[in-house]
Amino acid sequence: MTTLLPQALQAVIDEFAHLPGVGPRTAERYAYALFKSDQRASRQLALAVQQLHQGVKLCPKTFALINASDAISPLYEDPTRNKRIVAVVEDPLDVIAIEKTRQFTGTYHVLGGVISPIDGIEPEQLHVQELLERVKDDAVEEVILATNASVEGETTALYVQRQLEDAGLTIAVSRLARGLPVGVDLEYADHITLKHALEGRKLL
Amino acid sequence: MTTLLPQALQAVIDEFAHLPGVGPRTAERYAYALFKSDQRASRQLALAVQQLHQGVKLCPKTFALINASDAISPLYEDPTRNKRIVAVVEDPLDVIAIEKTRQFTGTYHVLGGVISPIDGIEPEQLHVQELLERVKDDAVEEVILATNASVEGETTALYVQRQLEDAGLTIAVSRLARGLPVGVDLEYADHITLKHALEGRKLL
Repeated sequence: MTTLLPQALQAVIDEFAHLPGVGPRTAERYAYALFKSDQRASRQLALAVQQLHQGVKLCPKTFALINASDAISPLYEDPTRNKRIVAVVEDPLDVIAIEKTRQFTGTYHVLGGVISPIDGIEPEQLHVQELLERVKDDAVEEVILATNASVEGETTALYVQRQLEDAGLTIAVSRLARGLPVGVDLEYADHITLKHALEGRKLL
Repeated sequence: MTTLLPQALQAVIDEFAHLPGVGPRTAERYAYALFKSDQRASRQLALAVQQLHQGVKLCPKTFALINASDAISPLYEDPTRNKRIVAVVEDPLDVIAIEKTRQFTGTYHVLGGVISPIDGIEPEQLHVQELLERVKDDAVEEVILATNASVEGETTALYVQRQLEDAGLTIAVSRLARGLPVGVDLEYADHITLKHALEGRKLL
């Protein structure tokens, strides 16, 4: 079937198909849309992708994504941000999600994944040691474990909590609230979510 | 919010967001996945995208996608394909879809879109004149109107049919069968599909 499409198009399809959740049909649609758009769009995408790795790095302190030209995360260095409250997240994109709420004035620490023996990710591969050091260095008062509400996320949160305890760091450790998301009918909520919503109910 | 992410990453996100059906969150996921993969993957994607336009062109006869080095569609020139049967499709990717059935031994003619006044696509922009010429030149016996089963697809099929008639070309003109798709329960089929399934019922 590969001979049906021009090689140059098939090459783009093959590369797009490596992106997460992109199957062959979607990759075909992307590649064809790119071909249909003017050549400048292709050139811009090519250039942006080419410069991605040299322009982006992980912050050595928070492991958030930063400009390669920055020494440290600008958010971390921002004097208006409270270094004594640290939200611990799995991925750099989780930082963006929390920032969009405009409710958080603390700083972040990106673990760089979750403990997942199936995917070969051991606790040692996550940036937990660096978190412990930060807690000491910055005199952190609260760590918010903002990992996902998945089995791996829970396991990782528990692991980080234990590590903080083992290091003798007696600080406040919290976890994001669980319950009904906005706009979801009670009858459509799964029973685990509903269980959490009941357990975490608030007196009015 | 744009200052939250490194510029080089935001640039890739912005470009990915131009792809059809890709929103900002999906574009973020794609860009981050690319950053997490090794630099070679980015370089390969950049190279493939860069070479796309110079490596691909439209066949001047069938308007299918072909290698820029080819003069004409290899499928059209294939002596085992019947030039007297022409499947008329909207998009070049429709060719791939039909080829995958391995049921069609004729040739293709890509219209390059459908009549859609809302999107500013007039009949004159489609490759209909070229189809009429092909019908004469290749002594075509049957034209299969394989446009989509949408309002625009139907309108376009009707338009092509009239153009063939107006040109005095008395050849067989057919349309793809409509009815229940495989694996869909009757109770879940929409009523228009069911109406077509009834009208097109076959005696056993």
